Amino acid sequence: MKTDIQIAQEAKMLPILEIGKQLGLTGDDLELYGKYKAKISLDVYERLKDKPDGKLVLVTAINPTAAGEGKTTTNIGLSMALNKLGKKTITALREPSLGPSFGVKGGAAGGGYAQVVPMDDINLHFTGDIHAITTANNLLAALLDNHLQQGNSLNIDPRRITWKRCLDMNDRALRNIVVGLGGRTNGVPREDGFDISVASEIMAILCLANDLDDLKKRLARMIVGYTYDNEPVTADDLNATGALTLLLKDAIKPNLVQTLENTPSIIHGGPFANIAHGCNSVMATKIGLKLSDYVVTEAGFGADLGAEKFFNIKCRFAGLSPDATVIVATARALKNHGGVPKSELNHENLKALEKGFGNLEKQIENVRKFGVPVVVAINKFPTDTEREMNLIEEKCAELGVEVVLSDVWAKGGDGGIELAKKVVALCESKKAKFKPLYDVSLPIKEKIEIIAKEIYGADGVDFTSKAEKEIEKYEKLGLDKMPVCIAKTQYSLSDDPKLLGKPTGFKITVKNVRISSGAGFLLALTGDIMTMPGLPKIPAANNMDILEDGKIIGLF
Amino acid sequence: MKTDIQIAQEAKMLPILEIGKQLGLTGDDLELYGKYKAKISLDVYERLKDKPDGKLVLVTAINPTAAGEGKTTTNIGLSMALNKLGKKTITALREPSLGPSFGVKGGAAGGGYAQVVPMDDINLHFTGDIHAITTANNLLAALLDNHLQQGNSLNIDPRRITWKRCLDMNDRALRNIVVGLGGRTNGVPREDGFDISVASEIMAILCLANDLDDLKKRLARMIVGYTYDNEPVTADDLNATGALTLLLKDAIKPNLVQTLENTPSIIHGGPFANIAHGCNSVMATKIGLKLSDYVVTEAGFGADLGAEKFFNIKCRFAGLSPDATVIVATARALKNHGGVPKSELNHENLKALEKGFGNLEKQIENVRKFGVPVVVAINKFPTDTEREMNLIEEKCAELGVEVVLSDVWAKGGDGGIELAKKVVALCESKKAKFKPLYDVSLPIKEKIEIIAKEIYGADGVDFTSKAEKEIEKYEKLGLDKMPVCIAKTQYSLSDDPKLLGKPTGFKITVKNVRISSGAGFLLALTGDIMTMPGLPKIPAANNMDILEDGKIIGLF
Repeated sequence: MKTDIQIAQEAKMLPILEIGKQLGLTGDDLELYGKYKAKISLDVYERLKDKPDGKLVLVTAINPTAAGEGKTTTNIGLSMALNKLGKKTITALREPSLGPSFGVKGGAAGGGYAQVVPMDDINLHFTGDIHAITTANNLLAALLDNHLQQGNSLNIDPRRITWKRCLDMNDRALRNIVVGLGGRTNGVPREDGFDISVASEIMAILCLANDLDDLKKRLARMIVGYTYDNEPVTADDLNATGALTLLLKDAIKPNLVQTLENTPSIIHGGPFANIAHGCNSVMATKIGLKLSDYVVTEAGFGADLGAEKFFNIKCRFAGLSPDATVIVATARALKNHGGVPKSELNHENLKALEKGFGNLEKQIENVRKFGVPVVVAINKFPTDTEREMNLIEEKCAELGVEVVLSDVWAKGGDGGIELAKKVVALCESKKAKFKPLYDVSLPIKEKIEIIAKEIYGADGVDFTSKAEKEIEKYEKLGLDKMPVCIAKTQYSLSDDPKLLGKPTGFKITVKNVRISSGAGFLLALTGDIMTMPGLPKIPAANNMDILEDGKIIGLF
Repeated sequence: MKTDIQIAQEAKMLPILEIGKQLGLTGDDLELYGKYKAKISLDVYERLKDKPDGKLVLVTAINPTAAGEGKTTTNIGLSMALNKLGKKTITALREPSLGPSFGVKGGAAGGGYAQVVPMDDINLHFTGDIHAITTANNLLAALLDNHLQQGNSLNIDPRRITWKRCLDMNDRALRNIVVGLGGRTNGVPREDGFDISVASEIMAILCLANDLDDLKKRLARMIVGYTYDNEPVTADDLNATGALTLLLKDAIKPNLVQTLENTPSIIHGGPFANIAHGCNSVMATKIGLKLSDYVVTEAGFGADLGAEKFFNIKCRFAGLSPDATVIVATARALKNHGGVPKSELNHENLKALEKGFGNLEKQIENVRKFGVPVVVAINKFPTDTEREMNLIEEKCAELGVEVVLSDVWAKGGDGGIELAKKVVALCESKKAKFKPLYDVSLPIKEKIEIIAKEIYGADGVDFTSKAEKEIEKYEKLGLDKMPVCIAKTQYSLSDDPKLLGKPTGFKITVKNVRISSGAGFLLALTGDIMTMPGLPKIPAANNMDILEDGKIIGLF
C-alpha cells in the first residue's frame, strides 16, 4: 500500500494558473509562489461582490478520539466528488502549523487519495502566512518591552502584561520564562511565555478580518496588558497598528492550491480551535463562495467546539449562511466513545457502538439548533462490519438524518459520490434557516450558560472567583457585548476529557475569562488550555529528511 | 526631492521572467514569488558548471561612520553602469533583516536612483529565507530542550548549552532569559537567550554551503553544547539534520530581483558581519558568475572586517578568485575619521580630511595584501568641495590607486560610468593574484595575530585566560584547523570604537573564542558583541503603515 507522501508525490498537478482559470481567475488575479501555489488578490472579491454566493457546506465531526475520524480527508473527498457531479466546488481548509507537523503528526493535508497538494510545501513554510503572523506578534512584544525600557510613559504594569510572544513550534521550555535579565541595558525583568503561533490572537484576527481595513482596526484594538490604574493598553497605544498591518499585507490574501484530482482548494489561516475559533479565514470562504457553486469548509475538533464557533463566531461576524453540514464519524470512533479501548477497536461490538452513538446523536442535535440541515458521513474502515453499519443507519433513521458511507481515503472523489449527492439534495432543498444560538448583547455568564446547556448538555456552569472577577472587569470596561469562545477539551462534550459518549449530569467549570478584543470575542477557559504544545519522546522531526534527488521523507 | 520609497514605487519593473531571460534562464529555472521575485533552481549551476566564470568585483569601504558611506548604493550603481557599458552584470547583495528595518534603519535596498526593487517586498518577508532559518534554528533548540526533558540520554550539561534561540527582531528583553520554568511538565529550567536570526550559525551555513548536500553536512556538525564529560554534542546527535535541511530546502535557492534600471540582482543570505562573515551566499555568487560577465558583490562593514572575511573565509571555502575591489569612501566620512564631529561635516576641513585619509590608506593596503587590485570610489555629496576632492586624488595618487567620483545616488547608472570603466580596466588587466592571508593549519593564536597585525595594524594580541582555555579546548578536540572569524567593532581598525582614522600603537584583546563548527570557522570575540540589537526610543515601526490603496509608508 502506498503511503500518503508517495501518493502525493505521484500526483499529476496542474499549473496553478490553470486551476485559477477554472475559477475564472486571470494571471493578474494570482500571485504565484512557484508553479503550484498562488495568493488570490483581494481585488477579486471587490470585483465579484455583487455576484450571488455559492452554497456553503461545513464538514464537522463527533468528538475526536484516538481512533481518528478523517474530517479533513472527508472534506477534500467530498469536494472532489461534488466536482464529479458537475458542481464547481472549492475546498476551504486551514493551514497546518509546523509545530504539530514536526512534533507528532508529520503533516496535515488530508490522506490517501483525498489530499491537497503540493503537500510538502503546504506542510512546510507554504506561502509564509504563519511566519508573518509570528513576526507581527513578536514585533508587538518587542515594542511593548521597549516601551517599558524607554520610560514606560503609558504606565503599563509589567505584572499585568497579557500579550505573549509566539513561535510556530512545539516547545514546552518556552511556556514559562523570565525575560529582561542581565541588567539595566537588557530590558525590564518580568514573567513571560511563548504560545504556538496559531494560538496567537493575530491568527484569529487574520481569519476573521473582512478586508485589509478591518484587519487594521482589529489589530489596533488588541489589548496587550493593563496600566497600574487598570486601564487596558492596546496595540494602537504602542503605535504598532501600521507596522503590524504592513507585516500582514500578503498573509491576508487567500492561498490557492489543488486536490489530487485538481479541485481548487483555498487553504488560508489556521487558528487554534480552543483558544480561538478554529476555522479557515473569512476572506477564503467569502472569495470561495463568489468563485464556485459549492464551498466545502471545516472547523476544528468536534461539532461541540468547531461547529459551534463556526456558527456563533465566524458566520455571525462574516454574515455567512451555511446551507448544510456533514458530520463525520467512524464505527471505530463510536465504539471508542462507547468504552472500547483503542487496541480492541478491530472487533465488532454493537453494544459499545450503540452506547457511543450518543455522541453523534448529540452533535446532530447541536447542528440542528443553528437551523442547518445535517447528513452523516461514516468514514469507511476495513474492519467495519455490515451489522455495525446497519446499526448506525438504523439509529440515524430514528433521528431523521441520512447517513452515507464515505470511502474517499481509498477511492478519492469516486468514494464520495453518494455523500455528494446527499449534500446537493440537502442544499437544493433550501431547508437551511441559519441563526446563531445567542444574542451577543446578553450578559457574559448567560452566553456561556446557553452554550454549556444547549450544546454540551451540561446542567449548568460554575464560575471560579477569578472568572467572576474578570467578567466583572470586562463588563465595567464595556467589553462584554461579544460572542464567547469556549476553550474546552476536544475529547468530551463535557470539560472532562475522560467522559466520552454523551455524558449527562455534569457541570462545566469556567476557571478564567480572557479577552481577544481584536478578534472580537471573550475567552472562557475550562480546564488547563495548552497554548504551547510539547514534543513527544521521539519527535516526527527525527525521521524527516530530504535526499539528494529532492525526495522528501517523514512528512506525511 | 523624492524619497527612496517614492522613487522605488515609481520604478518601471520588468516581469522577473524577463530579467531571467536576459540571463538565459527559462521559466523552468525560476520559481516565481509574485511577478517580480523568483528563486533560481540549483539545477542551473549544475547545468552551467563547466562554463567559465565572469569577473568578480567586491565593493567594500572604509570603517563606517555616523556620516554614512553608501556601500550598497555604490554596489547597485556600479552594476547598472557596467550594464550600460555592455557588460552583462549581476548585483549580488545580502538580504535585509526585519530587526534593523523595524528598529532603526527602516529598510536596506540601496538609495536614491540606485536601489533594488521591489523594495517593500525585499525589506519585508521577501521569499521567506530568514523565516526558514529562524524556524530551523528554533526547531533545533526545541529538540535540545526536549532531549533534556525526555531523560537526557546524551548526558548534556544544561549549563554548557551553547545553542541559542533566535528571532528576526530587535528585542533586547530576549537577550538573557530563563526557560523551562513552571514545574516538571514544562521543561528543564536553564539560562538561555535569543539572538537575531541573521546572527544564527544556520544563516552563516546557508551562506557558505556549496549545495544541498554540503548544507546538510554542515548542519549535522553544528555543536549545540557539551556533555558533563566535555564532549561536544552536535545537531546530528539530536537526529535533527534531516529536518533542518528539509526546512531550508527552498531557502538555499538564490533570489532574483532587479535594480531600478532592470539590472538582474541576486539577493541571498545576510549573515551578521561580526559573529559571522557578512557576505551574501556562495550559491548566489557562484550562480551569478556563471550567468554574467560581471558580479558585483559586497561584504559587511569596512574592509578590515568585511573584505578580510570575504577573502579569508568566503573565497577560500568557495574557491572564488576576485578580480577587483572597490573601496567606497566619502569626504564627509574621512573628515569624521579625522576628528570632525557629525554636526560639522558640512564645512571644508582639509586638515581633518588628510588625517582621516589614513583610514582609507590602511584599507587599500589591506585589500592589496590579498593580491586584489583596488579602485577608490568617492560617493559624492553636495557639500564636498573641489579642494577636498583634489586632496583625496592627490593622496590616492601617492598610493598608486585610482579614485573616481561616484554619483549613482542622484543619477543611477549614469553616475557610475567612470567607476565602471576603471573597474573594467582593472579586471581586464588581470593583475589580480588572489591568495588568502594565512594557512588554516596554523595554530589558532597565530591566525588571529596575523589578522590583527597585518589588517588592523595592531602591535599584538592579548588573550584573556578564558580565551586561552577555549583555544586549548578546540585544539584538543581537533577543531582548530579552520579560518578565524573575528568579531570586532566596525567603527575602528582597533577594538576600541573611539579610535578613528588609522590608529597605531594598540593591541587587540581577545576575550573569548567560540566555534561555529558547521559554518566552519572559529570566532574570536573582542569586546562585547551584540548578537541581539535593541529598539531605539522611537522605533522605525512606529511610523510605518499601509494605506487602503496599498501605499506603504515608513519603509525606506
